[in-house]
Amino acid sequence: MQPTEGPITLEELALAARNKGIPLEALRYDTTPTGMHYLLVHFDIPAIDVASFRLRVGGNVGRELVLGLEEIRARPSVTMPVTLECAGNGRAKLVPRPISQPWLDEAVGTAEWTGTSLASLLADAGVRPDTVEILFTGADHGIEKGYEHDYARSLALADATRPEVLLAYEMNGRPLEPQHGFPLRLLVPGWYGMTHVKWLTRIDAITEPFTGYQQRIAYWYRQAADEQGDPVTRIRPRALMVPPGFPDFLTRRRTVDRGRVELAGRAWSGVAPIVRVEVSVDGAWSDATLEPPLGEFAWGRWSFAWDASMGDHVLACRATDAAGNRQPTDSPWNVQGMGNNSVHSVAVHVR
Amino acid sequence: MQPTEGPITLEELALAARNKGIPLEALRYDTTPTGMHYLLVHFDIPAIDVASFRLRVGGNVGRELVLGLEEIRARPSVTMPVTLECAGNGRAKLVPRPISQPWLDEAVGTAEWTGTSLASLLADAGVRPDTVEILFTGADHGIEKGYEHDYARSLALADATRPEVLLAYEMNGRPLEPQHGFPLRLLVPGWYGMTHVKWLTRIDAITEPFTGYQQRIAYWYRQAADEQGDPVTRIRPRALMVPPGFPDFLTRRRTVDRGRVELAGRAWSGVAPIVRVEVSVDGAWSDATLEPPLGEFAWGRWSFAWDASMGDHVLACRATDAAGNRQPTDSPWNVQGMGNNSVHSVAVHVR
Repeated sequence: MQPTEGPITLEELALAARNKGIPLEALRYDTTPTGMHYLLVHFDIPAIDVASFRLRVGGNVGRELVLGLEEIRARPSVTMPVTLECAGNGRAKLVPRPISQPWLDEAVGTAEWTGTSLASLLADAGVRPDTVEILFTGADHGIEKGYEHDYARSLALADATRPEVLLAYEMNGRPLEPQHGFPLRLLVPGWYGMTHVKWLTRIDAITEPFTGYQQRIAYWYRQAADEQGDPVTRIRPRALMVPPGFPDFLTRRRTVDRGRVELAGRAWSGVAPIVRVEVSVDGAWSDATLEPPLGEFAWGRWSFAWDASMGDHVLACRATDAAGNRQPTDSPWNVQGMGNNSVHSVAVHVR
Repeated sequence: MQPTEGPITLEELALAARNKGIPLEALRYDTTPTGMHYLLVHFDIPAIDVASFRLRVGGNVGRELVLGLEEIRARPSVTMPVTLECAGNGRAKLVPRPISQPWLDEAVGTAEWTGTSLASLLADAGVRPDTVEILFTGADHGIEKGYEHDYARSLALADATRPEVLLAYEMNGRPLEPQHGFPLRLLVPGWYGMTHVKWLTRIDAITEPFTGYQQRIAYWYRQAADEQGDPVTRIRPRALMVPPGFPDFLTRRRTVDRGRVELAGRAWSGVAPIVRVEVSVDGAWSDATLEPPLGEFAWGRWSFAWDASMGDHVLACRATDAAGNRQPTDSPWNVQGMGNNSVHSVAVHVR
């Protein structure tokens, strides 16, 4: 289907009913409660019996490994906060709008993830020197744009063996819930969500770049459908705001009492640390106060004291990272609706 | 806004992005993992500090009570599985479509809830004999159709003092997550979701029927906006099916391999026990096998062995309860889009 300027379709609504965004007021929590973490599932959540579950590590390795969950849990573990965001966040704000999961601003969350080092496991398997990529295959199966496949993505060997890359089996101190990849998922801190293959069943060292659907067709920045473009990789900088005041049920329009209001939210980037968050009141930008991030790969809190005067106002926030990337005012358009990190704005009525 | 035959609006999409349905394949679990349980939040999820949290029980009582969470947890506890469903489930399938949260089929879930008897607490407070209703007020605040209010609903005294009505503080063995009402919510097994007031802060015995927005204006079965109609109360019978086979990402159209397929799902009613579930293949109805429910107020599993032949088929399921209520084929229309329990159907391609 082509991008459209038309209204939301029933297929988009059905996707929105299945997939889950964070309610923006939940940006108040350092760590997102599991049930409010964003979730995008391409096919169905598979039913996996943990007793018979095995992770197979093979391909271009010296020694194939077949591991049960308890063997993976017995390896040295790491726990760290990681911010995950869907590459399609902001898609429904594009004009024309690519037809897929119609995210507005809410496809993000930060959890405490626990897992074991992928690099260490690959070392045990003895990845051979002519390996170019590591391929990750999940148990989820379906059809996308005519291609029937198990969900699979690859990483260049150098990206896969970075020390922060984990095979994760706990989220927020508990075994993964089924929808987050139980019993085991990949975690690649700093990268958009499609990278973190859920329901992981196979890891293969490969000697040619992977050309499967989710790697070669989906998840590219393309200005036209017939160009290859650039691959979607790390998370672009973004700041979001806890909407102040209280909402109208249907319109979500905010009402705020006049006087001093603390605006606050979160900012993150998978490219480089966030160095600046700015807040705009009716178009005039000022620096917000930025707290240290929760971790190297997790969001940080920002806040801004606003003296709210009666009337209608538009508030906005934007982040800049240490690599000099600042969020754009206008949405960066591409065919698949990827990486739209344009500024978040909130209309409020002050009384 | 008037019901419409037009496309989904941006306001409906924003509600769909906030509120959460159960992915239908999760009907496979007896108890819904917390992060997949349906959720409808009218306003914002409030931030409640449990240390300063107090439940106040007052109004027409002999002795006002002010209780912290630990005092409530110290009372005798009950744990039971309860199926909750939003009264607006199925709304987006109505023609014309009332404008509100645009649920398709997915606004349901079953959790193990733990709490303490409301009747016992009311007895301790000494509800006076001329009390007609018990009023429940939450900490969530906002505007709906021009009415600014804290979310509040009442129950007739006889309904409020039924033995299964709980003040619940745990869901699936853990403290409530914020979005499900932390630290305390009402649980009225058998009733649609609007009854189970979340973030409960006050309970008042009152001597006149409550006329607040959520009681007198919202949640009525009305054929015209200017009639009072009938109140929405208990959950109408419904069966849902785990969609068989695997999906196409965008269309969710199912592909099934030919041969013997076990169709399965869940059925429930808040009115009377489910006594029959039927499955239709291309319009021909047959009885499914019905397992005992998980509990008096929770769904039961059903299954049906289908010999799938190649080609396109439409599968459907419907439930009948012991009070003789059977799900209708056509959606029962009303102004607010309440209680649409028309049969669930799934289109499949068998190969």
